[in-house]
Amino acid sequence: MNSPKTINDVATSLGIPERSVLRYGSDKAKIDLNYLLDLPERDSRLILVTAISPTPAGEGKTTTTIGLADGLRQIGVNAVMALREPSMGPVFGMKGGATGGGKAQLIPSDDINLHFTGDFAAIAEANNLLAAVVDNALHFATVEIDPRTICIRRAMDVNDRALRDVVVGLGGRTGGVTRESGFDITAASQIMATFCMATSLTDLSERLSQIVVGADFEGDDVTVADLGVTGALTAVLRDALAPNLVQSLEGSPAIVHGGPFANIAHGCNSVIATKAALGLGDVAITEAGFGADLGAEKFFDVMCRQAGLAPDLSIVVATVRALKYHGGQDLADLEKENVEAVRAGMPNLTKHVRTLQEVFGQKVLVAINQFGADTPAEIAAIEEAMGELEVDVALSNHFGEGGEGAVDLAHATVRALESPSHTTLCYSNEATLEDKAQTVVRRVYGGAGATFTRAAQRELTRLQKAGYGRLPVCIAKTQYSFSTDPKVLGAPSGFDVPIREVRLSAGAGFVVLISGSIMTMPGLPKRPSACDISVSADGTISGLH
Amino acid sequence: MNSPKTINDVATSLGIPERSVLRYGSDKAKIDLNYLLDLPERDSRLILVTAISPTPAGEGKTTTTIGLADGLRQIGVNAVMALREPSMGPVFGMKGGATGGGKAQLIPSDDINLHFTGDFAAIAEANNLLAAVVDNALHFATVEIDPRTICIRRAMDVNDRALRDVVVGLGGRTGGVTRESGFDITAASQIMATFCMATSLTDLSERLSQIVVGADFEGDDVTVADLGVTGALTAVLRDALAPNLVQSLEGSPAIVHGGPFANIAHGCNSVIATKAALGLGDVAITEAGFGADLGAEKFFDVMCRQAGLAPDLSIVVATVRALKYHGGQDLADLEKENVEAVRAGMPNLTKHVRTLQEVFGQKVLVAINQFGADTPAEIAAIEEAMGELEVDVALSNHFGEGGEGAVDLAHATVRALESPSHTTLCYSNEATLEDKAQTVVRRVYGGAGATFTRAAQRELTRLQKAGYGRLPVCIAKTQYSFSTDPKVLGAPSGFDVPIREVRLSAGAGFVVLISGSIMTMPGLPKRPSACDISVSADGTISGLH
Repeated sequence: MNSPKTINDVATSLGIPERSVLRYGSDKAKIDLNYLLDLPERDSRLILVTAISPTPAGEGKTTTTIGLADGLRQIGVNAVMALREPSMGPVFGMKGGATGGGKAQLIPSDDINLHFTGDFAAIAEANNLLAAVVDNALHFATVEIDPRTICIRRAMDVNDRALRDVVVGLGGRTGGVTRESGFDITAASQIMATFCMATSLTDLSERLSQIVVGADFEGDDVTVADLGVTGALTAVLRDALAPNLVQSLEGSPAIVHGGPFANIAHGCNSVIATKAALGLGDVAITEAGFGADLGAEKFFDVMCRQAGLAPDLSIVVATVRALKYHGGQDLADLEKENVEAVRAGMPNLTKHVRTLQEVFGQKVLVAINQFGADTPAEIAAIEEAMGELEVDVALSNHFGEGGEGAVDLAHATVRALESPSHTTLCYSNEATLEDKAQTVVRRVYGGAGATFTRAAQRELTRLQKAGYGRLPVCIAKTQYSFSTDPKVLGAPSGFDVPIREVRLSAGAGFVVLISGSIMTMPGLPKRPSACDISVSADGTISGLH
Repeated sequence: MNSPKTINDVATSLGIPERSVLRYGSDKAKIDLNYLLDLPERDSRLILVTAISPTPAGEGKTTTTIGLADGLRQIGVNAVMALREPSMGPVFGMKGGATGGGKAQLIPSDDINLHFTGDFAAIAEANNLLAAVVDNALHFATVEIDPRTICIRRAMDVNDRALRDVVVGLGGRTGGVTRESGFDITAASQIMATFCMATSLTDLSERLSQIVVGADFEGDDVTVADLGVTGALTAVLRDALAPNLVQSLEGSPAIVHGGPFANIAHGCNSVIATKAALGLGDVAITEAGFGADLGAEKFFDVMCRQAGLAPDLSIVVATVRALKYHGGQDLADLEKENVEAVRAGMPNLTKHVRTLQEVFGQKVLVAINQFGADTPAEIAAIEEAMGELEVDVALSNHFGEGGEGAVDLAHATVRALESPSHTTLCYSNEATLEDKAQTVVRRVYGGAGATFTRAAQRELTRLQKAGYGRLPVCIAKTQYSFSTDPKVLGAPSGFDVPIREVRLSAGAGFVVLISGSIMTMPGLPKRPSACDISVSADGTISGLH
């Protein structure tokens, strides 16, 4: 098994000169952005890792991504991962950390799960500075804004339901203009999305300037440029835009940068991170959040469309346990062999695989993240169903064995790359926003179509007329189902996807459509996991995972 | 003139082993807290730098602190500074940066003025996680809290008047319990105060556990310990508690840590920072915010009282310009010689000096931060008045000449240290909270006394009964005047100090009394300085200062 290195040695192994490595302690670093932007083109391969619809049984997509990188390095392939930064909010809620598990983990995991190098804080700060400037312009009437149109919400990396809907500007005339507003979790903020889509500091600045904060009384857009704070926001984000370098327990390099959620945002690591992995490795492994209906769809329709990326291979992660859960088996009984339940759950995997093949032109490989209770008959049922789609299935035990346990998956990956994808997108730029939503619902979710509240319809029409019709859509939807009902597992069909709210993300270059009852600010559970965390006198943190 | 070093060389020059230096890039570092706590006692001297009441004419207290350190090093004294971290909010409002000026500056100044090493972000995160946990306990009724008693406000490092008074928990029953609340700027938050008073990770944890978030329906305190999140808050703050090491343009070491404002908080760098400077240098120079009525009073009555510190010398910084402004000269005419205006402004300086001598037992030295337009006659007027108090006056031109310009000040400092202070405090622990306030108003501000709104009086009585009477008080007051009216310059007397609000800061160990119309969340001015900031394609930031 390979071992962790100093972060300087990780950088050196990728050919990054020491002057381009900004160390944060001995185990984290930022890579100088100008160095990355000047890297020569190389003929590297891009792999997208996605998954079936998540279940409480566990799939281990991040764990598998890390295991795959470790496995590829075991067989001599220079693989580099690109991953999202975890959000701190859920760490104190329900989710725990997001740095893999077992022997397939990123280190230093506590740091990465908490403040890391401060990127989330910088994004929240830029967002909230902008919100303060908007309310200040309203207070002093320096820029004409109709307070009812203000669409910039504040952001915080905390699960805090009490901040979803608030009234600000109370306390008399020195306290600003009273109006309704709300907070999103930082991972769902427009600045996060903008940050993740930026390709350089100049591009970030240009995108920030285009962010629409509201409208004047004629209904014309008021932008960040109109408020004159493009430079200030860029300054706040400057250092954060350089991507972070860390490693797995086995020393495999990982670029961890940007952290939008895939259910309520576009769910992919930053364009800069994925391009950095492509520039530094022979194989770049990028991960998109939640199931392929969410992260992967947005990876293609938003990120590949804008950034000119095209994966050579898509890997869909599944577990026997999760498929049995999709097939109706109780959580308590997942250790028991049940081939019928696996078969009953297969439509979820099949639907994701077919979407990747038919809609996005992907060469697909299925990775089964192994658990001890998996039986040969259950695995055979998966292989049989995938065989019909001409898709290989690779088993992997990176959780228990690290990279050595992922060597089979690594070899299967190398074989799959011999006949790579010919990436296509789900819809054309020219389709209307409404048609784009309908197309995603039908082709990717398998639903009957999208429906719109009157307010959502009105806003779509307004955006279409205002010239935003060419943008892709980013549908916010529950991760647990293809539909908007988190309880409907498997691969439902015939359902409607009700869109209740439309938000323009002009800086990121997409239009967010909020469906069902999905929230852009999560809440804490009745007993938050914050209650399980302790710190010893020497600083060791327990209970973070 | 001495030059900047790598941060590793700065650390090495102080004898800090490389394994105890956590680098953040090549020019910033955190020093391992356990290393600092294990440093042997040494016979070092402590100097407090304070100032006259600030004016728009400029005093340059931080600049003088840096110049003094550079000057002492010029004459071979191993001086180490302890300073507060700047708050980002005011950087985008009116104030600009807070890292000195001219040839007496801290570097890297942009970084220090913006995110630095993420300490403010960690403090805001801990504060807001606590607030979310409180609202969550209310939502699920897991801990009995009377919503009307909740005294934890949220925090953000942004000047945002619209967040001063808000209603949270709107949007129906999934959005928590509706109640009035508000945000403070991070520098005024209770977590910031608690963080700055902590002496170790264990002490921080103990202090956090004692923070009172509200009361149950019997009126009994509900604390962080009752909510079960002491460990989680400690985990969020763990890395931030290690102090930051940077340097001046001349390579003088500076411990920059903690950033409470002196008008709305206790205004001193962290106990850990000042103790680190004492442990690493032969002379430690610590700075307290704004005039001696604010930062210095709190340095003695809050920080020295709790942390057992006792300065050997207090230096009061003044400028001829500012004294003329206190003496009634117009801002536009400050370049013109006006000895009478200097004399008319002297009572402000004299009052601060006498308070330091008589109330706090200090040996005092006055440092005149020189400007080109200062005339010998004006300086002579200052020397004459100070002579009557047996206080030396040293001139310093560190702004124009760096450490070489501060050699006279450095020599005067060394001379002054030959007959050091015998530090005393303004009131005893046994005095009631109300008596403490009265004593500070009379002895330090020169006022007639404190008055209390009925609500403030009621809260003081409640706290006294609840056992918090032994704590010191921390009066929030405008920095521009000894009184609560920012327009009354010089050294007024006979005024009342109206206290309108009382806030217990049980974690920090003091009771905040809010006077006059001072706000714990500043607003942006009509034209925020954010509008003047730009970033070039290569990342150079302009307009931050």
